[in-house]
Amino acid sequence: MASVAPEVEKKEEEEQVVNPWEVSAGKGGIDYDKLVDQFGCQRLDAALIDRIARLTGRPPHRFLRRGLFFAHRDLNEILDIYEKGDKFYLYTGRGPSSEALHLGHLVPFMFTKYLQDAFKVPLVIQLTDDEKFLWKNLTVEESKRLARENAKDIIACGFDVERTFIFSDFNFVGGAFYENMVKVARCVTYNKVVGIFGFTPEDHIGKISFPPVQAVPSFPSSFPKHFSGNDQLRCLIPCAIDQDPYFRMTRDVAPRIGYQKPALIESRFFPALQGENTKMSASDPNSAIYVTDSTKDIKTKVNKYAFSGGQDSVELHRKLGANLERLMSQLST
Amino acid sequence: MASVAPEVEKKEEEEQVVNPWEVSAGKGGIDYDKLVDQFGCQRLDAALIDRIARLTGRPPHRFLRRGLFFAHRDLNEILDIYEKGDKFYLYTGRGPSSEALHLGHLVPFMFTKYLQDAFKVPLVIQLTDDEKFLWKNLTVEESKRLARENAKDIIACGFDVERTFIFSDFNFVGGAFYENMVKVARCVTYNKVVGIFGFTPEDHIGKISFPPVQAVPSFPSSFPKHFSGNDQLRCLIPCAIDQDPYFRMTRDVAPRIGYQKPALIESRFFPALQGENTKMSASDPNSAIYVTDSTKDIKTKVNKYAFSGGQDSVELHRKLGANLERLMSQLST
Repeated sequence: MASVAPEVEKKEEEEQVVNPWEVSAGKGGIDYDKLVDQFGCQRLDAALIDRIARLTGRPPHRFLRRGLFFAHRDLNEILDIYEKGDKFYLYTGRGPSSEALHLGHLVPFMFTKYLQDAFKVPLVIQLTDDEKFLWKNLTVEESKRLARENAKDIIACGFDVERTFIFSDFNFVGGAFYENMVKVARCVTYNKVVGIFGFTPEDHIGKISFPPVQAVPSFPSSFPKHFSGNDQLRCLIPCAIDQDPYFRMTRDVAPRIGYQKPALIESRFFPALQGENTKMSASDPNSAIYVTDSTKDIKTKVNKYAFSGGQDSVELHRKLGANLERLMSQLST
Repeated sequence: MASVAPEVEKKEEEEQVVNPWEVSAGKGGIDYDKLVDQFGCQRLDAALIDRIARLTGRPPHRFLRRGLFFAHRDLNEILDIYEKGDKFYLYTGRGPSSEALHLGHLVPFMFTKYLQDAFKVPLVIQLTDDEKFLWKNLTVEESKRLARENAKDIIACGFDVERTFIFSDFNFVGGAFYENMVKVARCVTYNKVVGIFGFTPEDHIGKISFPPVQAVPSFPSSFPKHFSGNDQLRCLIPCAIDQDPYFRMTRDVAPRIGYQKPALIESRFFPALQGENTKMSASDPNSAIYVTDSTKDIKTKVNKYAFSGGQDSVELHRKLGANLERLMSQLST
């Protein structure tokens, strides 16, 4: 079932659609400035990047320098905590919808690995196999298998084995995690999730039930074995900007159930090979380069599908020349 | 938040409201005939009761003889299975909303105990502490405590310890049980739960998420430790008729996910002390006699609140005499 753009987005921008299940833009590419204003997050400015570099004693990660991570929520508070010598933890995740990760999927993991190394903090990684079962035409077994396959690619990013917990929802939901799901669910009306996620009355209740599942890894009490007795530990979530709706909801609910709001650091999308109008997507294999692609596969995909700034035919290219502006904007991300 | 009567019921009967959270009738008491037609279940007739007696080699339970259990779904199929020497299992439950059980709560448990003894079958008992957290103004801890207290009263009914599994949702949801919840949720639209349960857009998503939790104990694969390798084992659910909406939904979904439909045997309500217009309810302590009430408590409640067929004052009683018709209808249940 195709997901529908939340009302608020329809009103403000006819062509741009950004939600956890769909990213598409008009001809000018995604308007990230508009997104920041619409979502109500903050821009990640040079002063904040300098502060990260100063506190961690390392040069800022290239994803920061190049503005790939460009927005945040309460990142300054996380840095305050760190500066005082207190701890926080990282939470990121993946919806396992393909056999292997592609370059776009790697962005949050490569960046999270840098954050873990720089701040020396624990990390939880959620594999939402339940979400993919609910949204895609997969069996439970297939969703669980993809989660396991994806976990291997994630592990290969080199996280600190002593400080990292990777879990699949189908395996881990229960106990304290389920208690937090139910606590969150009691605080969010149907009208509210319709406003945030654009669900329709013909959507199944699995979709309506899911947002609390992605919300609760933001709360340390969901992991009693890892954060026992540390229920107020702050959480920082590195993710792409399309996940912001989940955590807007989570931040709204957190104080009402006695928990801290999670902080966020949010990236742009990794563009499809075809160009910046949409993100590299597992649902279109020709838009993406996978970690399992061979050198030959990659060469073919780039030659055949990648946006190059060239015109559509040799004739047109001779007449118009390369579109340098679009080529440069592509290279800068 | 008050629950709202499903649309279908509003249309057919202005005054009678029967759903899992509300039972109220017009002056004539609950019209059970109308309920059977509305819900689409079958009447439990003398022939079926005789068949139970014949197959089990015991006189039918008094709750059957007196018509307290009066409706069913596919009970004949369960008896066919038993006659062929095959097994089935029983599933009943309780929403722990009070410190102790009252007489009305005991009805399904006393009857289930008889069924377990007569058919020698396994039994699962679900304590929906999550439901009570979602619908009542309780903490998670208090809901769990009430579930534990209620479990003691349930155990006191004398179930076969070798064949009975009692669980609370907050403790047990997870693994195969959660997988089944998600499978059910994917098959039910928001419009569908609104039609069945009467939810409104201002209801929280916890309510919308709950029906799959009560649905999945109907499927043996939710209990891999108990029914491993026996995924097609049939299930019989003894319950009051107000729980029928959950299992109508469950029966609708079951074949779509490769499972057997649960069968049902359904009772009338145990009336409030005040009379037949509503059921004995934990939310009104004066309507109910609890298993923890002392002899003195019970005497006071009966003398002060119970409907007796007597008129409101001695004077009126002298003038009009006892209302024998209502008194007899009361005694017959």
